[in-house]
Amino acid sequence: MVQPHCPKDTTGKNSPKRLGSTSPPRWSQTRRLAPAELFVGSFLALIVAGTLALKFIPGLYENEGLGWTDAVFTSTSAVCVTGLIVVDTATYFTPLGQAVVLVLIQLGGLGMLVLTSVIIGALGGRPSLRTESLAVGARHLLPQVPTKRLIVDVVRFTFLFEAIGAFTLYLFWTPRMGWKEAIWPSIFHSVSAFCNAGFSTNSGSLIEYQDSPATIVVISVLIVAGGLGFITMEEIHQRYIRRNPAFRRLSIHSKLVLATTAFLLLSGWALFALFEWQGLLSKMPLVDKLTNSLFMSVTPRTAGFNTIDYGSATDSTNFLTIILMMIGGSPGSTAGGMKTTTFALLGLLAWSRLRSHQTASFANRSIPSETIQRASGLFVIATGIVVLGVFVLAFIGDSHRATQAFLVRLFETTSAFNTVGLSMGITPQLSTPSRWIVIVLMFIGRTGPLSIAAALIVRLSTRGRFRLAYEDVVVG
Amino acid sequence: MVQPHCPKDTTGKNSPKRLGSTSPPRWSQTRRLAPAELFVGSFLALIVAGTLALKFIPGLYENEGLGWTDAVFTSTSAVCVTGLIVVDTATYFTPLGQAVVLVLIQLGGLGMLVLTSVIIGALGGRPSLRTESLAVGARHLLPQVPTKRLIVDVVRFTFLFEAIGAFTLYLFWTPRMGWKEAIWPSIFHSVSAFCNAGFSTNSGSLIEYQDSPATIVVISVLIVAGGLGFITMEEIHQRYIRRNPAFRRLSIHSKLVLATTAFLLLSGWALFALFEWQGLLSKMPLVDKLTNSLFMSVTPRTAGFNTIDYGSATDSTNFLTIILMMIGGSPGSTAGGMKTTTFALLGLLAWSRLRSHQTASFANRSIPSETIQRASGLFVIATGIVVLGVFVLAFIGDSHRATQAFLVRLFETTSAFNTVGLSMGITPQLSTPSRWIVIVLMFIGRTGPLSIAAALIVRLSTRGRFRLAYEDVVVG
Ligand SMILES: [K+]
Ligand SMILES: [K+]
Repeated sequence: MVQPHCPKDTTGKNSPKRLGSTSPPRWSQTRRLAPAELFVGSFLALIVAGTLALKFIPGLYENEGLGWTDAVFTSTSAVCVTGLIVVDTATYFTPLGQAVVLVLIQLGGLGMLVLTSVIIGALGGRPSLRTESLAVGARHLLPQVPTKRLIVDVVRFTFLFEAIGAFTLYLFWTPRMGWKEAIWPSIFHSVSAFCNAGFSTNSGSLIEYQDSPATIVVISVLIVAGGLGFITMEEIHQRYIRRNPAFRRLSIHSKLVLATTAFLLLSGWALFALFEWQGLLSKMPLVDKLTNSLFMSVTPRTAGFNTIDYGSATDSTNFLTIILMMIGGSPGSTAGGMKTTTFALLGLLAWSRLRSHQTASFANRSIPSETIQRASGLFVIATGIVVLGVFVLAFIGDSHRATQAFLVRLFETTSAFNTVGLSMGITPQLSTPSRWIVIVLMFIGRTGPLSIAAALIVRLSTRGRFRLAYEDVVVG
Repeated sequence: MVQPHCPKDTTGKNSPKRLGSTSPPRWSQTRRLAPAELFVGSFLALIVAGTLALKFIPGLYENEGLGWTDAVFTSTSAVCVTGLIVVDTATYFTPLGQAVVLVLIQLGGLGMLVLTSVIIGALGGRPSLRTESLAVGARHLLPQVPTKRLIVDVVRFTFLFEAIGAFTLYLFWTPRMGWKEAIWPSIFHSVSAFCNAGFSTNSGSLIEYQDSPATIVVISVLIVAGGLGFITMEEIHQRYIRRNPAFRRLSIHSKLVLATTAFLLLSGWALFALFEWQGLLSKMPLVDKLTNSLFMSVTPRTAGFNTIDYGSATDSTNFLTIILMMIGGSPGSTAGGMKTTTFALLGLLAWSRLRSHQTASFANRSIPSETIQRASGLFVIATGIVVLGVFVLAFIGDSHRATQAFLVRLFETTSAFNTVGLSMGITPQLSTPSRWIVIVLMFIGRTGPLSIAAALIVRLSTRGRFRLAYEDVVVG
């Protein structure tokens, strides 16, 4: 885990050199641009590598191999830890093929964590407008830490959780499957759950485990842990386990993450139980009613396993799932979405406006208006992309035959963009153009519209350098 | 129209006395609260008066009278210029009954314009955090104007437009209906269009005029003029008609209003034509294809007449209509919605974030971040209320039989909250509890969540008085 000492290295000059050992001069020359390019480029490279692996490694498929579009789709879905599938992972792939998918998931999930850490480390103490758009305010929070140590800590922390998860699942699944047969599914589901990937080695995701409270609880813990973000995990570790005196109180960031996560999990749990008590849950015993409604609250942010069929759920269940998919997990985690903190800040903004307060505040701290503006901007951009996605999918027109076509499309778009992987069932029926739309949505959703914009714009336009005169506008 | 001289009266002390002649002491004592209370209270009083009129004036109905819920519904819909109907205005009411509805519409529409003017006048130069929540940044724009003159100008400007509109409609409708029969519909539709009310004396709204380009164009002009807002109308009048040297350039507010309105009208026109060219428009001659798709672009912000059946339209048409309903008209007008400027500022915010600029700007002017924050807050609150409305309507459950139940509910909620009045057809089938939900949505949507909050909170809590220490949070 992240070690919060070494305060001497405040220049941040050493860290990038250790990392970018192949081309340190270029890194230092274009330093202001590097994080966004590194971030977007890494994912793109990983997707290309994954596609080639899926096309050319022999023995991955039970029958015929994937076409190019589906290879790109599957590679993108795995690397972006989305979990949408056009072929059934359980039956279409051999165990070797599943292993390739799992490696892509692990690299994609770890890549997210490591790259975020690297960027935080590489930024050092120098704030830059360009890199701020990468949503890495984290450098204000965590004490200066060398990049290498950060990476080692993140990798160790990931494997530790995944190992414990796999072992626990193995214990619960051995009686059901036999000791030999339980090994691979345990590993696969533990990694897939912690990385919030949502891929499963079962044809029906976790529907066959809806009567296994132990499975649901273990997977839920892995998902929530993976989605909490390492800043918060590290603070909890230092404060409550190591009892480090430097961490007398949790940062406002971690308090907000924990409060929002708890609020979303509990209110979602209650609402899904309400919506489906006489619907999908009606024939289950009480304990399964409770675990399955809990899981419906856990999985949309943004794990993507399902223990129920969303195609048969009520409108309210699907709408709440869409909202939770948009919100997603917490910053610096494997989860996608616009993040719990963004959602919380929007809520605090609304609350402050309703009370005519000038600044949003939480736990006796004011939130900088620049941060509120960043959250609002992200919300507007994410909403805009999803809206555009719905129109484009409707225009291409495969989903016209679905009975609730609009809801189905909104669900699919939200799921792809926020790297969730849930579906009301249309993914395998999508036409080739629609598949490419979903691929693009998955990629933009994972790397973030702001990172892509930052990587594409070569330098700040001169107009951004000086500030224009202010003039006000009437609103609302 | 507003006269931009009389700069001596900058204290704003005279204006409120002229207005609040019944109780000037109270007005001055609680001056900081008065605008929100006045605003919300006026609409509430008008709705109550309208309900009593609909219940107790004899001779309003062809057959039996309205029950209490429907009287409240109709009065609220008319006063809030929403236009949702549970009974057919054409056949249920006698001409006298229609006249009562029209008076309520006129009072509601004029009330909106006058009260906004009064509040702007009453505020004088003194900014107050509380009253800022009423979205009256307009005082920064218009030179100091005495309240009475402002009211006279607004009333004159309204009646002028309505008279021209009625006369023009009368000319076009006389051949169709006869000179005597055309009088009442011409007046009714002109007032209803300029006030963005959407009530019609025809059972099918304007569907029977879908083959009359003249009607569609006249009604469109009235709607757009009514929805542009008097700040902008006044500036155009001074700048281009009177050629007043004090108005050498349009304010950034008016430029933003005009640019956004033009953008929304033109892009909506093109998109609706695209979505329905082979759908609802397929059997029309070319000129009607063009006028009807134009009207589909005009009416959702937030007039509420329809020349086509939204229940038979494509998903994309209905989704775009929902988005335009949320955006609505311009500030200081009879139109509802979150307003064109709010939408434009959100777009500028997104654009500035994508380009890594720190401030949003338009036409070489920076927009104050406080204004951006107000726009974002409004967007979040409006979205939250609509989402809540959809869940509540689903929970009450009348609309479950609709084939696209989710879309139908989203459409109805958006239409009610943004005072639009379009429907995919479920309004008359709503149960009594659902009708009350729609009534509440119409009222909150017209007076504004912030005004209601301001009217409810008696004084600023002490916590808002001092500023808390800042601490940052990681976003996105
Ligand atoms: K996922
Ligand atoms: K209306």
